[in-house]
Amino acid sequence: MDIKDYMHTLGQQARVAATAMARASTRAKNDALSELARLLLGAGTTLAEANARDIAAAEAAGLSAPMVDRLRLTEKVIATMAEGCDQLAAMPDPVGEITGVKRRPTGISVGQMRVPLGVFGMIYESRPNVTIEAASLAIKSGNACILRGGSEAIQSNLALWKLVGQALESAGLPVEAVQLVETTDRAAVGELITMPTFVDVIIPRGGKGLIERISREAKVPVIKHLDGNCHTYVDAEFDLEKALVVTENAKTQKYSPCNATESLLVHEQAAASFLPRIGAIFAAKGVEMRCDAASKSILATVPGANVVDATEEDWSTEYLAPIISVKLVGSVTEAIAHINLYSSHHTDAILTTNHPNAMQFLREVDSSSVMVNASTRFADGFEYGLGAEIGISTDKIHARGPVGLEGLTSQKWVVLGDGHVRG
Amino acid sequence: MDIKDYMHTLGQQARVAATAMARASTRAKNDALSELARLLLGAGTTLAEANARDIAAAEAAGLSAPMVDRLRLTEKVIATMAEGCDQLAAMPDPVGEITGVKRRPTGISVGQMRVPLGVFGMIYESRPNVTIEAASLAIKSGNACILRGGSEAIQSNLALWKLVGQALESAGLPVEAVQLVETTDRAAVGELITMPTFVDVIIPRGGKGLIERISREAKVPVIKHLDGNCHTYVDAEFDLEKALVVTENAKTQKYSPCNATESLLVHEQAAASFLPRIGAIFAAKGVEMRCDAASKSILATVPGANVVDATEEDWSTEYLAPIISVKLVGSVTEAIAHINLYSSHHTDAILTTNHPNAMQFLREVDSSSVMVNASTRFADGFEYGLGAEIGISTDKIHARGPVGLEGLTSQKWVVLGDGHVRG
Repeated sequence: MDIKDYMHTLGQQARVAATAMARASTRAKNDALSELARLLLGAGTTLAEANARDIAAAEAAGLSAPMVDRLRLTEKVIATMAEGCDQLAAMPDPVGEITGVKRRPTGISVGQMRVPLGVFGMIYESRPNVTIEAASLAIKSGNACILRGGSEAIQSNLALWKLVGQALESAGLPVEAVQLVETTDRAAVGELITMPTFVDVIIPRGGKGLIERISREAKVPVIKHLDGNCHTYVDAEFDLEKALVVTENAKTQKYSPCNATESLLVHEQAAASFLPRIGAIFAAKGVEMRCDAASKSILATVPGANVVDATEEDWSTEYLAPIISVKLVGSVTEAIAHINLYSSHHTDAILTTNHPNAMQFLREVDSSSVMVNASTRFADGFEYGLGAEIGISTDKIHARGPVGLEGLTSQKWVVLGDGHVRG
Repeated sequence: MDIKDYMHTLGQQARVAATAMARASTRAKNDALSELARLLLGAGTTLAEANARDIAAAEAAGLSAPMVDRLRLTEKVIATMAEGCDQLAAMPDPVGEITGVKRRPTGISVGQMRVPLGVFGMIYESRPNVTIEAASLAIKSGNACILRGGSEAIQSNLALWKLVGQALESAGLPVEAVQLVETTDRAAVGELITMPTFVDVIIPRGGKGLIERISREAKVPVIKHLDGNCHTYVDAEFDLEKALVVTENAKTQKYSPCNATESLLVHEQAAASFLPRIGAIFAAKGVEMRCDAASKSILATVPGANVVDATEEDWSTEYLAPIISVKLVGSVTEAIAHINLYSSHHTDAILTTNHPNAMQFLREVDSSSVMVNASTRFADGFEYGLGAEIGISTDKIHARGPVGLEGLTSQKWVVLGDGHVRG
């Protein structure tokens, strides 16, 4: 198989399907999603067989247990995929919304209409449920998509994709609206990201290496999600009990998500009351604390605390592990400067009872999500009410933060006249 | 001078300035704009001297008369620049606007805050007034910018930039918010488009060659404006007199703008009444008609008409000249298919009295501006009420069509809680 020809064929088919999807009725799109949910719940045996083949191959290849676990299509994973499809079916259709129509002095009316982006390419690793997330978001947003999953999940992805095709067909929508790259040849990725004629945007989900490589080589726009070096800052005036609960949740509720807090900044005036108590919580949970000198002098006195000296590198590190960097600052301004320098612009929070400081933090922290008195763990499309997310963007243009249906659309201008001409 | 060091220095200074600009008060930004307007109106002699040097050099270099004309800072051009600054000062500040705040079931409130993009790089040719347009839009939108004008306008650009610096200083804003690349070395462009650490987005304005080169080589997002192959489609049911006036305006009001109509599609049922009349108008104005066989058979009978056979290439050509391609179609669906195939996705219009056809055209034409019963010449930031435009985007992500203040911003998520944690 010539990979270039193959990918161009997928691209051409996607372009044609995208036109049909852009004009598809809300009902047809919702019907496809409901049918997909039904098919998922009914396909237990087929999915289990396909998944078992991926699992066996992964185990034979010596993949680590957590890697193998990520491949598993358990009943719970399947139920969650089906629920996601049903939720999307129940959401308002973003396509066709016309906003901001204003009459201009010339007499024309000018507004904006929300439209699908066209064709998106999705490149992802391991978890096969991403196949359904991407497919369902594409259907509801009226886009076509070309999916390239990890080779280790190819059998599961093929089985899931077959259901997507059935659902599209049953709703009278083109099956080419969602295409899966059937070859595991890596050259397919290189083609997918360099076909601007057929693909409008690339959404990579995976490790930093994958995303950096794609950003470097792509010839189309990339909505990228790099790392989440998230901060929680405890201000001088704060509610001690709430700060403890939020900081504990932000760091320890789960260690692996990108929205977990990796760095704790504490105002000098808050240190004496806050640090020993959060230090005890971290000590009890086995969280290693990498500290500047000032915070170390306090935290080192906490019984059982694992306290080490932070290096410069720690301030910009996303641990995704029971490790947190800790630093004292003299003001909210200093905290903001530290965050804007070291943060990955993903999610950062202030815990404060001081309103001007809260507002300054909201305005000046240059991150895709900025929070007041809430856990950074909330940075998530579902928590934000987007219904689902295709990813979390750490870019500054187009979409920042969790990207849902709206991020898969853009707005074109509409002008309504009655024979108007420009003078 | 080491160009890389020089550009990195500009980049570092821009990053620092961007932070100050993002938090600048609306008053300070408006003061800078009003002062800039005042300085422009008072700088006649200085600007005239600098401009005369560019003109002399351009004439000595044998540039064509239209090219030399584009360089001229006439009193009218200066007055228009000053008026633009005053208009921007009077516009609402886009920065800090918080929208869509909703309470989520978890208790957190989630919304979005509009923020500047950070640093944009602007690459443009000839017309020195772009220096002021870009600088003033940067100031109002709270961004920093690095401007790289054409070498043929370097003296004029330096003189204008000096005024921008004075205006920023008088308002207490950092002069590095607007920096002009002082060298005409072409390597500076190569650096500017490959410094993702310092530059968030590149906006090129100029010929197709320049923009394609920049898009190909840039390592940061590019808001690009490629060609404007705009269509006007006359439907089966239409108002003859209005259609004549709009079509004439769309094609002949000016030939060089990107929003001028380059291709005329006419429904077969409209051809007999519409084509001879518009053909006579085009004939009188010396507009060459490049026709398919069906339209040629009608237009060839018009006295004085310059009618030739269209080639396949004509359907995708932006003439920017008194030439128009003409084709008959059998339905609005056929017109839409032709436009989506050949249009540059800039601006396309339908002239119709049929409401379903108008709505179908609005929904299905995949262009940055879609119009009903209006001249394509309206596609312009000022006409749309944006106050000014930094360019017209033919991209699909981030901003489509005229890009004004809002296109130079994006939205970050804000989350307000009261000690909320994720369960």
